[in-house]
Amino acid sequence: MSTLKRVQVVENILSANDRLAAQNRTLLDAAGVFSLNFMASPGAGKTSLIEATVRALAGHLRLAVIDGDIATSLDADRAAAAGAVALQINTGGDCHLDAVMLGQALPQLDLAKVDLLIVENVGNLVCPASFQLGTHKSVLIASIPEGDDKPYKYPGMYRGVDALVINKIDLLPYVPFRMDYFRQGVEILNPGLTTFPLSCRTGEGLDAWLDWISSLPVQPSH
Amino acid sequence: MSTLKRVQVVENILSANDRLAAQNRTLLDAAGVFSLNFMASPGAGKTSLIEATVRALAGHLRLAVIDGDIATSLDADRAAAAGAVALQINTGGDCHLDAVMLGQALPQLDLAKVDLLIVENVGNLVCPASFQLGTHKSVLIASIPEGDDKPYKYPGMYRGVDALVINKIDLLPYVPFRMDYFRQGVEILNPGLTTFPLSCRTGEGLDAWLDWISSLPVQPSH
Repeated sequence: MSTLKRVQVVENILSANDRLAAQNRTLLDAAGVFSLNFMASPGAGKTSLIEATVRALAGHLRLAVIDGDIATSLDADRAAAAGAVALQINTGGDCHLDAVMLGQALPQLDLAKVDLLIVENVGNLVCPASFQLGTHKSVLIASIPEGDDKPYKYPGMYRGVDALVINKIDLLPYVPFRMDYFRQGVEILNPGLTTFPLSCRTGEGLDAWLDWISSLPVQPSH
Repeated sequence: MSTLKRVQVVENILSANDRLAAQNRTLLDAAGVFSLNFMASPGAGKTSLIEATVRALAGHLRLAVIDGDIATSLDADRAAAAGAVALQINTGGDCHLDAVMLGQALPQLDLAKVDLLIVENVGNLVCPASFQLGTHKSVLIASIPEGDDKPYKYPGMYRGVDALVINKIDLLPYVPFRMDYFRQGVEILNPGLTTFPLSCRTGEGLDAWLDWISSLPVQPSH
C-alpha cells in the first residue's frame, strides 16, 4: 500500500469525522446543552476532575457524562456515583473517541434534561487531538508527576485546547517539576491559554476551575 | 468509506508491519544485539529507567537507545548524557513506533558495537501494543500516580508484555494506590508476569531490575 493511498484514507476518515462532528454540535445546540471534551494521559485525573465538578455543581446544573474507554465502565460508574447521568462508550481497541461514537451515544441521553455534558476521552496524549467530536470546548488535564516536558513532546495536544488543568499540585514537593519550564512550553504552543493549577485530591485550586465552568454559556433550565 | 474497507486497510498495514518486524529481528540477531521495547503512558518513567539502566550497565555492556517521540530530541539527549549511543526518531504525529521506523533507524547504528538496544516507544498506553517492532522482549513501565485501575482499562497493553516495571513507588505514601487491586488486574491479563516495583528517583528496587537485564541472553562482546 503506497504512502499516498494511506494519506488519502486518513484524510477521508478525518473529513467524514468533521461532518459528523458538525451534526453533533447542531444536536447539542438545539437541545441547549453546552459540552466539554476532557483529554489527558492515562491517570492524569480526568475522572477525578469530573467527580469533583459534578459534586460541586450537581445542585445548580444538570450534568451528564459520556465516558470513553478501551474497556470497563469504571469511569462511568464513578461519575454516576458522584451524581451525574453517566454513559460508557467502550471503544474496543480504539485509542480515541470520534464523532461517530459520540453521535451514537447522544441519542441515549435525554438531552432536554441536560445543561452541561462532559465527554471524557480515552486516556491518550496523542490521538484524541486529531478527532473533532462536536463539543463546544476542549480541556486538557495535565498532572505534575507526568513531568514538565510534556508540552514540548506532545505539541499537537497542547496546541488545540481551550483550557488547561494542571492536576496533582499536592505532589509538587515530592517530584521534580519546573513549573516555569512547563508554562513556557505551553505559552509557545497556545499563547494566553487559560490554566488551572489544582489538586482534585486536596481541593486546592478547584474554586477557580468551578468559576470558569460557571462563566461558560451553560443555561440551567430547571 | 465502508467499515469493511477500513478494517481491510488496517489488516494490510498490520501484516506489512509484521513482515518488516521479522526483518528487523533477523538484522538484530545477525549482529548479536538483544533488544527491548519500552512502552508506557506519557511520564511513567521510560526515559528515567533508561538513564538508570545505562548508568548502571554502561561499564559492562555497550548500550544503544532509539527514542520514539512525536517531537523534540529531549529523551535521546538524556539517554546520551547517561552514556548510551542514542538516536531519536520523530514520528511527526504518529502515536506509536512501527517496524518501518525502526527498520529505517537500525542502519544508522553501528550494530557490531552494540550489545543491548533499548527502543523507547511513544508515550501511549494504547497504540504501541498493536505494532510489533521486531524487538526480543517488551517491557511496560507503569507508575504509581497513574492509578491502580490501569490494567483493567488498558488490557491490550498489559496482556502483551514480557515484563512490568512499577515505577515511582516512592510516591506510594502520597497517592491512593491499592497494590493488591493493581496486581490482581495484571494477573488476570498476564498470569505470572515478571514484575519490578521500583523508584528510578530513589533507586529502591533497581537491583532486581538490573539482575533481570543481566539474566537476558545479552552477549557482551567487547
